[in-house]
Amino acid sequence: MPAAAAMNAVPQLALLVEGRDRKGLLHDMTAAILRHDGDVHSVEILERGERSAIFWELEQVGDPDALIAALESIDVVETVRRLPSMVQVYGKRIIVVGAGAQVGQVAIGAVGEADRHNIRGEKISVDTIPIVGEANLAAAVRAVARLPRAACLVLAGSLMGGEVSDAVDDVRSHGILVVSLNMAGSVPEHADLVVTDPVQAGVMAVMAVAETARFDLARVRGQRF
Amino acid sequence: MPAAAAMNAVPQLALLVEGRDRKGLLHDMTAAILRHDGDVHSVEILERGERSAIFWELEQVGDPDALIAALESIDVVETVRRLPSMVQVYGKRIIVVGAGAQVGQVAIGAVGEADRHNIRGEKISVDTIPIVGEANLAAAVRAVARLPRAACLVLAGSLMGGEVSDAVDDVRSHGILVVSLNMAGSVPEHADLVVTDPVQAGVMAVMAVAETARFDLARVRGQRF
Repeated sequence: MPAAAAMNAVPQLALLVEGRDRKGLLHDMTAAILRHDGDVHSVEILERGERSAIFWELEQVGDPDALIAALESIDVVETVRRLPSMVQVYGKRIIVVGAGAQVGQVAIGAVGEADRHNIRGEKISVDTIPIVGEANLAAAVRAVARLPRAACLVLAGSLMGGEVSDAVDDVRSHGILVVSLNMAGSVPEHADLVVTDPVQAGVMAVMAVAETARFDLARVRGQRF
Repeated sequence: MPAAAAMNAVPQLALLVEGRDRKGLLHDMTAAILRHDGDVHSVEILERGERSAIFWELEQVGDPDALIAALESIDVVETVRRLPSMVQVYGKRIIVVGAGAQVGQVAIGAVGEADRHNIRGEKISVDTIPIVGEANLAAAVRAVARLPRAACLVLAGSLMGGEVSDAVDDVRSHGILVVSLNMAGSVPEHADLVVTDPVQAGVMAVMAVAETARFDLARVRGQRF
């Protein structure tokens, strides 16, 4: 199973732990989780400084109620609540990166198509960033592998290559699909799929990751539309 | 300083720690960070299972090189690399939630406006999810407070109220701005700003969080455009 797929599974237990903040609090929580055999699927620090709010997604916890009691017994912790996991709420993510005008058109296609699948019980969100310059673009592409729940990257621009193409190879090696607009530069040669119309690129990106769609990217890989 | 603003500062040190995975690894890393006086700004688990990749954003580390050496000395750790922080790469986030057709139009406005600010050195990204049903919508709105770097939420629909309005109050209490389309239901009464045209709603949301824009939401709060 590619890394991206493993990260998109729904975890056993999602907990929001709130209270006052102090140094070493995260370490005390990881100790409690370890004592209850928990494996950390994800952790998000929502508030820090005076107050603390930490959101944990956990696996393999032997006795969830006992773990909740253990977290509640930490001196500064005030409340521990069970919440839905982020993948249940926001689902898989399509990331669109590039020039504003084209990113907007890809978003129109992707959001419209995600709506149709989300109505049938899927959860797909579409995240975008308009960005300028090869170094910024390469950093944003590389960082897609560090975004939780990222399933597909769409490159929306007119000229991308060099460092960006290396970043595309890197992201694909993490199990993330890459769709490129038909454009100048070497990026299209490094993508899984090349699409000329930005609206269609957005639609196809969503179809490729939706479980309710009958679109197998493996059957069209390397083609240009 | 509201929680959202504190979370959007650039952290002192961002490290990607990679190697094999095993139970208790996160706990061993928090121990090393604590020994070097580090305060955890954010942590992201990128890979788990066979391989492990954990991205740390840290503050107040006494001696960064000593901490890196301490992390490298953990049995399963293979490499520790300094990376740019997520706020440096993706910046502040505008979150757009609602019905597909309207979410797409808000995205057009927000992405186009973000492009203009990002060209001048800002980093603003626009994240969307088309979603159906009061319970799903309320969960998505509430979870905005759990999204890293979220600065503004735009509600794009034609009818929202009840549980969604409660969720809007909750998100605003976390220091996140809320822009609502002019629509049926009670949500517009709970928002910071109500805008009729979805493209303008996207533009205004970006203007409200951009430091390069001269738009002070406090001066138009409660108005309808």
